[in-house]
Amino acid sequence: MRKIEHIGIAVKDLDVSNALFEKLFGAPAYKAEEVASEGVTTSFFMNGPNKIELLAATNPDSPIAKFIEKKGEGIHHIAFDVEDIVSEIARLQQEGFVVLNEIPKKGADNKLVAFLHPKSTNGVLIELCQEIPQ
Amino acid sequence: MRKIEHIGIAVKDLDVSNALFEKLFGAPAYKAEEVASEGVTTSFFMNGPNKIELLAATNPDSPIAKFIEKKGEGIHHIAFDVEDIVSEIARLQQEGFVVLNEIPKKGADNKLVAFLHPKSTNGVLIELCQEIPQ
Repeated sequence: MRKIEHIGIAVKDLDVSNALFEKLFGAPAYKAEEVASEGVTTSFFMNGPNKIELLAATNPDSPIAKFIEKKGEGIHHIAFDVEDIVSEIARLQQEGFVVLNEIPKKGADNKLVAFLHPKSTNGVLIELCQEIPQ
Repeated sequence: MRKIEHIGIAVKDLDVSNALFEKLFGAPAYKAEEVASEGVTTSFFMNGPNKIELLAATNPDSPIAKFIEKKGEGIHHIAFDVEDIVSEIARLQQEGFVVLNEIPKKGADNKLVAFLHPKSTNGVLIELCQEIPQ
């Protein structure tokens, strides 16, 4: 794990939150992207070596819709940048962490991603992500 | 705001969570510190340009005890590194954010800190922090 790649924040209305975070950072989102498989639409803000990802649900069954229903808007996950997601998944499983998807899947922002179950990580939803070479 | 300085995670038992995050990062906490004024004891893990701060309550009136009572263990706040906390507080107030303490206070890890009210930031408790020159 080399750095915090991004923090994911669940929001109700992406336009409203884009305006809010543009004020916070003094710069607009540099990217917007829909991830249909997860039922989310996202936007990304750069903050030095890190990013903030805003996530809004595109349907009521989206994990983000359920998260907001249960906990309200707020921080949804932390994503750590890893060099080799396959070996990192194996290492963490050996250490006793519960990996939600053992086979990395395609996430937003050109990444292969895997999630650790919050029950094994102090209530924190942790994403591992590896940049896909282009 | 130059980068994510750290993410603060509320935990029930600092020893248990220190062991967990040592496994996650493959390296132990580099610092432990009590902040009596906030009723917390903390530990810090390095992760490239970023840090993870674990926070455990030292008394039942601690904000961390109340947070865990209400929401369970998990991510408590995001702290952004700022060059000049006084001017950043002024800028954010002008933008409509609610600053919880207008006068920066001494936080953990040799920082001057100020917090933004989550009601003005999409449910996210945001800390601004500036390193104190030594």
